[in-house]
Amino acid sequence: MRAGAPWVFSNEIEMTPALKALAPGSLVRVEGGDGRPFGTGYFNPASLIAARLLSPDPESRIDEAFFVERISHALSLRQAFFETPFYRLIHAEGDGLPGLVIDRFDDVLVLQITTAGMEALIAPLQRALESVIAPRVMILRNDTPARLLEKLDLYARPLKGGMPPHVVVEENGVRYFADLEGGQKTGWYFDQRFNRADVAALARGHTMLDVYCHGGGFSLLAAKRGAREAIGIDSSQSALSQAEEAATANGVSSNCKFIKADAFVELERLGTQGDVFDIVVADPPPFVKARKDLEAGARAYRRLARLAAVVTAPGGFLFLASCSHNISAERFAAECAAGIARTGRRAALVRQSGAGPDHPVHPLLPETAYLKALLYRLG
Amino acid sequence: MRAGAPWVFSNEIEMTPALKALAPGSLVRVEGGDGRPFGTGYFNPASLIAARLLSPDPESRIDEAFFVERISHALSLRQAFFETPFYRLIHAEGDGLPGLVIDRFDDVLVLQITTAGMEALIAPLQRALESVIAPRVMILRNDTPARLLEKLDLYARPLKGGMPPHVVVEENGVRYFADLEGGQKTGWYFDQRFNRADVAALARGHTMLDVYCHGGGFSLLAAKRGAREAIGIDSSQSALSQAEEAATANGVSSNCKFIKADAFVELERLGTQGDVFDIVVADPPPFVKARKDLEAGARAYRRLARLAAVVTAPGGFLFLASCSHNISAERFAAECAAGIARTGRRAALVRQSGAGPDHPVHPLLPETAYLKALLYRLG
Repeated sequence: MRAGAPWVFSNEIEMTPALKALAPGSLVRVEGGDGRPFGTGYFNPASLIAARLLSPDPESRIDEAFFVERISHALSLRQAFFETPFYRLIHAEGDGLPGLVIDRFDDVLVLQITTAGMEALIAPLQRALESVIAPRVMILRNDTPARLLEKLDLYARPLKGGMPPHVVVEENGVRYFADLEGGQKTGWYFDQRFNRADVAALARGHTMLDVYCHGGGFSLLAAKRGAREAIGIDSSQSALSQAEEAATANGVSSNCKFIKADAFVELERLGTQGDVFDIVVADPPPFVKARKDLEAGARAYRRLARLAAVVTAPGGFLFLASCSHNISAERFAAECAAGIARTGRRAALVRQSGAGPDHPVHPLLPETAYLKALLYRLG
Repeated sequence: MRAGAPWVFSNEIEMTPALKALAPGSLVRVEGGDGRPFGTGYFNPASLIAARLLSPDPESRIDEAFFVERISHALSLRQAFFETPFYRLIHAEGDGLPGLVIDRFDDVLVLQITTAGMEALIAPLQRALESVIAPRVMILRNDTPARLLEKLDLYARPLKGGMPPHVVVEENGVRYFADLEGGQKTGWYFDQRFNRADVAALARGHTMLDVYCHGGGFSLLAAKRGAREAIGIDSSQSALSQAEEAATANGVSSNCKFIKADAFVELERLGTQGDVFDIVVADPPPFVKARKDLEAGARAYRRLARLAAVVTAPGGFLFLASCSHNISAERFAAECAAGIARTGRRAALVRQSGAGPDHPVHPLLPETAYLKALLYRLG
């Protein structure tokens, strides 16, 4: 905290009975043992991260005006990068609003609150969103298991307007569809937007295999940029249906094919029959959900890299991503390198990247940069 | 090596008298203590990295055909990303050619050889370059101190054609000028090309301060993309003259100003008088040239980040880069974060990147990814 970090762990606090009796999510003034003030934050005696700073000002009022300032600052960052209003609008600590994620689909906002402190501030937050964005619809997707760490219940409900069955996502000039109710996460993975554009820029005249294709993020853009054929694989029929619908909407359905299959099984099958693709994308769900899964997850990333390399054409590109918080960038890259090396293929790492600028990272929480993306070219 | 790494350190080798007597740079067959063959490489008893693999085939002939294959593979990678022939054509191990760097300026190639093994292979290398590229001019810039580690002498001389006083660089739609003879490195820093484009995309209508501007890489592109004013600072008069010449050639001289000054002194001066810029770029020479310089270099990066943050406007962007091999990405980011935090400014890290795809990295030598670039947005 002295260096500027925004978290106080429970073992760093002098936990008095009065403090323990505070309601989870109470606003507090945070100060050092020497009385030095660190700022205003919120407190939860039940959480490992017992306090999170909202402001360096110990007298800060956390009201509608506070949220208006934070949201306006976040909005101007997105507007510097994106021409259309489809992005992550608020990315927790990266935008000075711990415990809050908001994804924006034009006039529909999907909110996810993960702390008792932020849950207690819904009213001024909502008023500020009305003031800055004036959305038609606001939905609370408060059903992430991360809430259990703060002893919060899980629920999803509209905060304003009705729950739309699905929404349009405009990204890189492509129209996708997202399922806000049943879909994964908040409905769309905005974090890969620039990575999708970077990979699709290589696609003209080539073939692509898009493993874990979800709503067709990589494959549809590749087809739109001139890929000869783009095949998507996913285990979710509803995701595949959205991808197919979007392929038609973008006029690329003749170049796209979407297959319901288990990624590992299908990669084994394609590899055994000798099929290869000029570009292979593998953007799986997190294999390391908790720290205890690290070794098993690392092995899964290595195996995925090996199987994906086998079906990458000579001279082709292999894009591998991990969205696991609990594996470091170094370890993920090492597992990918080991998996590729196992095939005996020559390889060069041509790009390392992460989430887009609508997922800003607090400089003193580098470990929250969860998305790791690697682009290899194979020999 | 069993995992696929291309280096053998001297303490990993059974150093027999016969081996020690081999001429530096001799081609060798590399095998494990158990007789398992690792491939064909070259050997230098005087170097800490005693052998570097050229091919996994222990019977590989390292001749013109070998180089033709390697150069063609490297060329096709560049052609996948770049429309004009200005790029790093060969990036050592990343392109399967340890000890060799080649920068391409259209029909002019600048070669840099850093090992005795590659020096011994100049003849087939040159024939292969004639066959694949047929350049008008080839220059050897063999004057990097890294050669001393291999007990090689330092020299620069034309290999084909005359030494051109300066060449044109076409990059991101801008024409720059590079000095191949007296300039730093091989004359141009191709590694920042995509970073320059990313930063310039934020520049329309804004002001930029480009600290360590060299030939105007960041500032001229920003001006071309609509920056209201771009100021470059460098200590080299010849670099500034090239930047000024390029500003005129690109029709942006009225928006650009280039100032000869020490970066730290000028930043202190600007900060003291309260000047701020919407975008600040600081892309210094390596502050950590050797491992022993780590702490001093880290402090210099921290101080640079602090001074640069002071002159970044509220809501503005700060781009900080390190090209030091000897500081990790984590440490560099930590020093930048600490420097910015010292100013009390709120900050968000919006992008982490590295060198462009014409600087591929061998997957098992992640430590050779030397360029670290961080884009912050300040509050």
